Amino acid sequence: MEKNAKTPAETRTIMTNIVLPNETNALGNMFGGELLSRMDRAAAIAAQRHSESTVVTASVNHVSFKYPIPQGGVVVVEAKVSRAFSTSMEIYCDVWLDNPITKEKIHTNEGIYTFVAVDKNNHPVPIPELIPQSDVEKARFDAALRRKELSLILSGKMKAQDSIELKKLFG
Amino acid sequence: MEKNAKTPAETRTIMTNIVLPNETNALGNMFGGELLSRMDRAAAIAAQRHSESTVVTASVNHVSFKYPIPQGGVVVVEAKVSRAFSTSMEIYCDVWLDNPITKEKIHTNEGIYTFVAVDKNNHPVPIPELIPQSDVEKARFDAALRRKELSLILSGKMKAQDSIELKKLFG
Amino acid sequence: MEKNAKTPAETRTIMTNIVLPNETNALGNMFGGELLSRMDRAAAIAAQRHSESTVVTASVNHVSFKYPIPQGGVVVVEAKVSRAFSTSMEIYCDVWLDNPITKEKIHTNEGIYTFVAVDKNNHPVPIPELIPQSDVEKARFDAALRRKELSLILSGKMKAQDSIELKKLFG
Amino acid sequence: MEKNAKTPAETRTIMTNIVLPNETNALGNMFGGELLSRMDRAAAIAAQRHSESTVVTASVNHVSFKYPIPQGGVVVVEAKVSRAFSTSMEIYCDVWLDNPITKEKIHTNEGIYTFVAVDKNNHPVPIPELIPQSDVEKARFDAALRRKELSLILSGKMKAQDSIELKKLFG
Amino acid sequence: MEKNAKTPAETRTIMTNIVLPNETNALGNMFGGELLSRMDRAAAIAAQRHSESTVVTASVNHVSFKYPIPQGGVVVVEAKVSRAFSTSMEIYCDVWLDNPITKEKIHTNEGIYTFVAVDKNNHPVPIPELIPQSDVEKARFDAALRRKELSLILSGKMKAQDSIELKKLFG
Amino acid sequence: MEKNAKTPAETRTIMTNIVLPNETNALGNMFGGELLSRMDRAAAIAAQRHSESTVVTASVNHVSFKYPIPQGGVVVVEAKVSRAFSTSMEIYCDVWLDNPITKEKIHTNEGIYTFVAVDKNNHPVPIPELIPQSDVEKARFDAALRRKELSLILSGKMKAQDSIELKKLFG
Repeated sequence: MEKNAKTPAETRTIMTNIVLPNETNALGNMFGGELLSRMDRAAAIAAQRHSESTVVTASVNHVSFKYPIPQGGVVVVEAKVSRAFSTSMEIYCDVWLDNPITKEKIHTNEGIYTFVAVDKNNHPVPIPELIPQSDVEKARFDAALRRKELSLILSGKMKAQDSIELKKLFG
Repeated sequence: MEKNAKTPAETRTIMTNIVLPNETNALGNMFGGELLSRMDRAAAIAAQRHSESTVVTASVNHVSFKYPIPQGGVVVVEAKVSRAFSTSMEIYCDVWLDNPITKEKIHTNEGIYTFVAVDKNNHPVPIPELIPQSDVEKARFDAALRRKELSLILSGKMKAQDSIELKKLFG
Repeated sequence: MEKNAKTPAETRTIMTNIVLPNETNALGNMFGGELLSRMDRAAAIAAQRHSESTVVTASVNHVSFKYPIPQGGVVVVEAKVSRAFSTSMEIYCDVWLDNPITKEKIHTNEGIYTFVAVDKNNHPVPIPELIPQSDVEKARFDAALRRKELSLILSGKMKAQDSIELKKLFG
Repeated sequence: MEKNAKTPAETRTIMTNIVLPNETNALGNMFGGELLSRMDRAAAIAAQRHSESTVVTASVNHVSFKYPIPQGGVVVVEAKVSRAFSTSMEIYCDVWLDNPITKEKIHTNEGIYTFVAVDKNNHPVPIPELIPQSDVEKARFDAALRRKELSLILSGKMKAQDSIELKKLFG
Repeated sequence: MEKNAKTPAETRTIMTNIVLPNETNALGNMFGGELLSRMDRAAAIAAQRHSESTVVTASVNHVSFKYPIPQGGVVVVEAKVSRAFSTSMEIYCDVWLDNPITKEKIHTNEGIYTFVAVDKNNHPVPIPELIPQSDVEKARFDAALRRKELSLILSGKMKAQDSIELKKLFG
Repeated sequence: MEKNAKTPAETRTIMTNIVLPNETNALGNMFGGELLSRMDRAAAIAAQRHSESTVVTASVNHVSFKYPIPQGGVVVVEAKVSRAFSTSMEIYCDVWLDNPITKEKIHTNEGIYTFVAVDKNNHPVPIPELIPQSDVEKARFDAALRRKELSLILSGKMKAQDSIELKKLFG
């Protein structure tokens, strides 16, 4: 049975939860690593929704932490597939600290993950196409190619000189 | 009191532990996010050892997952500061799946984290110099500058055209 | 500052997550108690969004478990305030087992919680009005009064003979 | 082999434990949901003791939370089967906050759970009779029938007009 | 206010719980360390009940593990103070694997802990007398003195030649 | 294939980690039981490294807790096999509270565990010889025999009068 092409919205996964004491550092703010772990779970579900198969984390791209998230804070992680390749997908996680009392909603960071769809023997399987809709989705779709090239270079699978997108960017 | 310059070895942090059931996915292998979280903890300790202060995660650079780590496996995370800037540090985490029975030791991945040293009000504080010793440490020290530039570009704090190291690499 | 009346949609809280091994019983299915705990967290966030204050669980109403949720399954908890009283709120949690691969989505159960809005000394504080919009929201809003009466009788604060709504139902 | 009839005392299960930081809310008191989860575990063991088989949670009846339980507090959950039907059982959980220093012992709440005895294929299996002994046990045994009727009505399996016990109560 | 002398029964603490997947090793049986941790919690509560004060673990005496405890098994830890000294107490933990289905009850091991009663500054405070009642309680009370001597020798606070009880035993 | 004799250094296992809120008592210091649990994990890995097989905890010998370990503190557990018998091993765990900021390093306690090497049916299997190198390793190797004798007496498998090493010590 063929798997259907999907829009990012069809893969959208929302994980709202409180920051627990065990997830905080000496300043009472969330450990970066705990947030990375939550994003990985949300991203895995989004990747399953797109690929209709089991998935494994292949890589994590640049993630920056600009705003401390305090204990007890309500964190909303929203994951959506941003581009599908042949057997791998890029997933974008947006994270908000969402204060239910003041209604202040701070976009604390973005995390970008790559997942591979696999069968029961951990071998890659083909995945359907992703068709971006909104402007933001289209921009992320385009940039995904540059990030893929960067990832290949950083993991030693491509030489910097052989890049196409990145040479354009820095050339 | 002035903080002394340090070698990477003085910041070395080893975290050996077993993969627990709750950390595994449908294939019985460790979630990528759980490993990211362990690396963050080890890296935070290494960063404290170098900076002699409280630290917070500033960003995670490219991390790739090449080899599945099974439930019950012994995972060794080794974190060392690879370069110190004025208030931030890059930390390199090497991860091994270390089979105590067969003695097979697989280098499953590297994770690169940036931490900032902060005071009690979460404001950056100056940190001592890092002086790399081995060839690997020197190579990582040099590459850290390129990664920093990349990080600034990816978070929108520098334009690609203004980069120095990366333009050299891709030009 | 006065707190504004809200619609149920404004309090909507979605918590998507995987069932972990530690949450499962001898048959490999989720413990009822773990699901109750997740629903309580989602309901607490919805209650905070409505009341714009700290909240505490006051009671749990009838919850039935009809469909086993297996380890690794994706569980979506959706909480919305269904009725606001003077200082307490009823929150409705709908739970789905959402198979990202087969796209099958099973409504496994509903949980109904009552929360009280409190200040720092744990004393009740007034909350804004809730204005239901959809037919389902209106039906739940109406039934909330019967459930409140039932709750008062079950906790010994009202006599069965003094009930109004329930006497209508069973009379 | 036939399973023997039992008294509530033969099913008695005591779970004494401390309230951990991760189980507490912004006021430093135990989340309602965490207590529901502990009660579910204790009730499941009591139900296994009575039915001599695997059990699954079928429903939770009304539970009220009157007294906040602080972090570090010693919580005693006592579960006993209160009535056995053909394949399902009602279990009563009494919860005390038991201060080992002041010797103050507060009955913070009661939780009532229904479990079904099942075989390895999750199909219901017959369970032995329960014979209440004390006055409290007899009162709970009698009231269990009303709660069962209520549960059937609330889950849509019986019409309010067809109830026997509840019509008596409210008529 | 003076604290009253107590019997072991007045300090009795029962912790019944299931063995969770995260607590098991490669053979599917409970880690020894997890059981030690549960015993420590139960013993701490028993020690608080006797001393009517905060307590801290001072030492663990010999504990042997003879019987594997499988995942999902029901473990009953029963802790009772076995002897009170001036500011420290010995607590005896008996552990059973209690099969609710077969009714088989296996005494898997004993753990003996020493706790010290402390004030808010972590300084030792005097505790009441313990008066053993049953034959087993009296035997444990007597043997506690030998164990205390052994503990002092093993931690270097007494010379083997200065022992009284142990010289009697081995002389 | 024969398993090779090993030195203690070849079994050395280092587990560095932070003390989390859930692991602390009312005074904000680590529960003794949590430290026992960490030591058990580290010791199990060291025992696997020596025996090249699966291992189970057989007993815990005397462990004393002299120094409180605060929340957020960095704890280093170092486990090394101290003596190998035919199928069992003694493992020594040294624990340090290692302040990365002040560089103060406090030896908080020692824990001594005995593990047995087992096959898939939980039956003991022979293990290689251990050859101590340093003076400390030799002293611990020698003392292990006395501790083994003590362990046999305490578990009722040997009479005090039949001991050899202990009679020498106390005689």
